[in-house]
Amino acid sequence: MTRSPDNYLSLQVAALAGGVGGAKLARGLDRVLPPGNLTLIVNTGDDFEHFGLRVSPDLDSVCYALAGLADPVRGWGRADETWNCFSGLGELGAPTWFQLGDKDLALHLERTRLLQEGLSLSEVTRHFCERWGVRSRVLPMCDGQFRTQVRITDGSLLDFQEYFVRERCEPVISGFVFSRAEDIAPAPGVLSALEEADLVVLCPSNPWVSIDPILQLPGILEVLRKKTVIAVSPIIQGKSVKGPAAKMFAEMGIPPTSLSVLAHYSAFLEGFVYDLLDRDLFQNYEGERIIIRGLNTLMQNDEDKTRLAIEMLRFGQDLIARKAP
Amino acid sequence: MTRSPDNYLSLQVAALAGGVGGAKLARGLDRVLPPGNLTLIVNTGDDFEHFGLRVSPDLDSVCYALAGLADPVRGWGRADETWNCFSGLGELGAPTWFQLGDKDLALHLERTRLLQEGLSLSEVTRHFCERWGVRSRVLPMCDGQFRTQVRITDGSLLDFQEYFVRERCEPVISGFVFSRAEDIAPAPGVLSALEEADLVVLCPSNPWVSIDPILQLPGILEVLRKKTVIAVSPIIQGKSVKGPAAKMFAEMGIPPTSLSVLAHYSAFLEGFVYDLLDRDLFQNYEGERIIIRGLNTLMQNDEDKTRLAIEMLRFGQDLIARKAP
Repeated sequence: MTRSPDNYLSLQVAALAGGVGGAKLARGLDRVLPPGNLTLIVNTGDDFEHFGLRVSPDLDSVCYALAGLADPVRGWGRADETWNCFSGLGELGAPTWFQLGDKDLALHLERTRLLQEGLSLSEVTRHFCERWGVRSRVLPMCDGQFRTQVRITDGSLLDFQEYFVRERCEPVISGFVFSRAEDIAPAPGVLSALEEADLVVLCPSNPWVSIDPILQLPGILEVLRKKTVIAVSPIIQGKSVKGPAAKMFAEMGIPPTSLSVLAHYSAFLEGFVYDLLDRDLFQNYEGERIIIRGLNTLMQNDEDKTRLAIEMLRFGQDLIARKAP
Repeated sequence: MTRSPDNYLSLQVAALAGGVGGAKLARGLDRVLPPGNLTLIVNTGDDFEHFGLRVSPDLDSVCYALAGLADPVRGWGRADETWNCFSGLGELGAPTWFQLGDKDLALHLERTRLLQEGLSLSEVTRHFCERWGVRSRVLPMCDGQFRTQVRITDGSLLDFQEYFVRERCEPVISGFVFSRAEDIAPAPGVLSALEEADLVVLCPSNPWVSIDPILQLPGILEVLRKKTVIAVSPIIQGKSVKGPAAKMFAEMGIPPTSLSVLAHYSAFLEGFVYDLLDRDLFQNYEGERIIIRGLNTLMQNDEDKTRLAIEMLRFGQDLIARKAP
């Protein structure tokens, strides 16, 4: 049943993404693939309620990236953002551990309003993407209230944003709790997008808290095992490009390397992309089932993003061709 | 039991207020009276939920006025306001009939958060006033969810803000509905502030939708009948200084004059202040129970506000002196 398109531009692609790193590759794939060929499936385990509003950090990072609204320097939130409401919150003594830009706030307000009107998160996301003229399809991984929590070594649990933003990832972790993951269906379109994909890409997002939540949802792993799945390491030379991925590997007792990322996904991976800076690590790599490829994976500007996207698609195409009869 | 203080500065005053006009006199009284001598009791019948946030327009107008944060030109909201979130809402196609300034939004966000944490509206209001260094006490009329609705001539009901802002007061009204007023207790401190007041002032707010909601609450009228109560007309020369008060009188079949305002409150009023521009109207006034006084009631700047406040307090003091044994 696997198609083997001649040109990588005719591939149907589904990409699993979390926040900043995922949004970067998502942007690249979106610029390269024709409209309709890409579905982004985005982690919502970081979503939370703040001041009564529904905040979806990863979904927003991906949508802003695709809409061309993302701040290119900060890596999150909107370009040309202002902070007048946020400074007003500070003056009132309100909690300010989570920064809320004025324009960003508009999104949280309208999302909250539409959810209260009975729309699902998928429907709200589609509505925003239509307004912004986003070419690809963006799906939250689920419409239900999935919540990622981090277990601290003292046994206590922190909601992800508390750990990530308020505590600046400082507590030492011992594990992760995905609330009711087994009861929460993937959002409409998620499983079919994966089923119909020629290629599934795991973006260079945090394996533990950006990609794993998606993998926890019922039915996802079953589909992935049937598909051509490639991943990019979010870890280069033992360090996360951004965020706590490397720190989490280390605290879980696993060497924080791109090899460990490969191992993390090995149950269903067909191809793995590591950064060329890590080529020594893979020199003696002897796995046979997973094909590896070294690329320049750091994405510092839009050119880097499209370049990596093209190379990922070519890699995927090669893997598909190998399997073709 | 009525005290007759020698100086109006020693009066204990409770003032009932609604939005813009009420906030102006509230500001004057607050500047004139020593800290601790003034309690504002503010209409919350206009409160509503917008984008999941709790908005309290009248309470905010009064608090901003007392905190010195009010916009002097617009008459509502904050001075030096910005509208970046609001323009973002417009870009998303969100409803924009109710303008939300960035700084103003901070107040709605933090109020919503604190209410969700279990604080009452009174407690939240006290907290904000303490942060702003407000000298007088500001009480919402109640902590319960009182809702003022306007009945339109076609029989339908509009929530007040829908009528007031979204419909720009254009529909012709036939009456008012105060939801569950009889079940909602005045906020803690409201009845005792009235009981302990030497003088109760009805600010020049809309009688129908700013003052009447307060009067609807259980126990309020009973206390007012025992007190020295004076009112200022919000109508001058047949017109509201601001808002739909005159239009409402006319649509209710009552001449929109300051005389009608006097009549509206006559059940418990001891003194009534009309604007000097209306002196002809009162030339042949023959009521004996209600003492009238003509003053310049238009408040265009802070000087006007303190001047009117002083004249109101002197008027109240005269009334109290008349009753002294």
